[in-house]
Amino acid sequence: MVTKERYDKILRVLKKRQRDLSVLAENVHKPHNLSAMLRTCDAVGIGVVHALNPTGGVPTFNETSASAHKWVELRVHGSLAEARAALGGVQLLAAHFSGRALDYREVDYTRPTCVLFGNEKHGVSREAADAADAHIVIPMLGMVQSLNVSVAAAVILFEAQRQRLQAGLYDAPQLSERELHAWAFRWLYP
Amino acid sequence: MVTKERYDKILRVLKKRQRDLSVLAENVHKPHNLSAMLRTCDAVGIGVVHALNPTGGVPTFNETSASAHKWVELRVHGSLAEARAALGGVQLLAAHFSGRALDYREVDYTRPTCVLFGNEKHGVSREAADAADAHIVIPMLGMVQSLNVSVAAAVILFEAQRQRLQAGLYDAPQLSERELHAWAFRWLYP
Ligand SMILES: C[S@@+](CC[C@H](N)C(=O)[O-])C[C@H]1O[C@@H](n2cnc3c(N)ncnc32)[C@H](O)[C@@H]1O
Ligand SMILES: C[S@@+](CC[C@H](N)C(=O)[O-])C[C@H]1O[C@@H](n2cnc3c(N)ncnc32)[C@H](O)[C@@H]1O
Repeated sequence: MVTKERYDKILRVLKKRQRDLSVLAENVHKPHNLSAMLRTCDAVGIGVVHALNPTGGVPTFNETSASAHKWVELRVHGSLAEARAALGGVQLLAAHFSGRALDYREVDYTRPTCVLFGNEKHGVSREAADAADAHIVIPMLGMVQSLNVSVAAAVILFEAQRQRLQAGLYDAPQLSERELHAWAFRWLYP
Repeated sequence: MVTKERYDKILRVLKKRQRDLSVLAENVHKPHNLSAMLRTCDAVGIGVVHALNPTGGVPTFNETSASAHKWVELRVHGSLAEARAALGGVQLLAAHFSGRALDYREVDYTRPTCVLFGNEKHGVSREAADAADAHIVIPMLGMVQSLNVSVAAAVILFEAQRQRLQAGLYDAPQLSERELHAWAFRWLYP
């Protein structure tokens, strides 16, 4: 039995989903990191997360996700080319330390955007860094060189949320009536 | 052997440490969460983190910390009163869902501030919520009710970093010459 309250909540959430904002996780392999990232994506209105996982392993989640994997679709790709094709014509921003990296607060996330995050140990691959339209970094003022990947994702994605709230991008649905109901159906009857 | 480069880096970091910004973690018990929080604090210039842990357990870290526990001092308190006394006269902001919660972006973090985060499962205790000067929340636009605690901490603390960068609070050292050298000594010869 689905209550009217539950159904309304689901529609309210789906009407805020941002079709043109997504994440590409490159070989992020710890379940608690991937779980926390999906949970953040849900809160920012990201409905689809892409994972690049050439080893073909199926990602696992832990209780940290608070079941976010039910609400955020994870699409696993075997190559960067495949992920790029699935993303379509968006700006690809790599969260990556490099000589050409911009402060993450200087970038316009109201444009169609995918943010790429790298592996816990090795960071973003050379291939993915080269393919990105820009590199972005969160300023580090301490001794440690990098943040935990799920933390970096949250900091950048809530900046995107801030900009998109300000631009009114959550005010009108981005999904069509048809898509809204297809998603609602899948959420209600998984 | 300490190279000059290493020593200069250490002094540079210590000169950005914010004496009047801190974190109080209430019963945050998963090592990967506490570790990620310390790593974030280091990057934001927080030198001391307080943990409220009535069970008296000593917190543990995992590799996620990237050894941030070497650079951020963790002080464990057995009661809220003890933690409050150690904090001194700062505004205590509880990251906590409540009727009186403000959007975290509306708060002034350039004032002497401690941000309190709650337990993974049970959130902020009633006692701590009552003791806080204000409650703050990160807007959630999805199905899941809350973020991972280390993620919530990062989102709020990088907003504090943004405000403090803008206000010039990282431009001049907040620690005295004496304190700078005492910290440097402890970091070099732990
Ligand atoms: C733990 S870091 C990887 C560290 C790796 N040793 C390196 O140098 O790239 C994992 C991922 O988190 C993201 N990340 C961590 N800290 C970041 C920061 N300050 N700015 C932007 N992205 C960051 C990046 O996507 C990075 O690839
Ligand atoms: C997983 S949450 C606790 C959830 C708990 N069921 C509750 O309702 O409070 C752990 C801690 O993360 C912080 N937190 C999580 N999401 C937050 C948000 N959207 N705004 C502010 N703080 C948040 C709070 O400090 C919270 O106590």
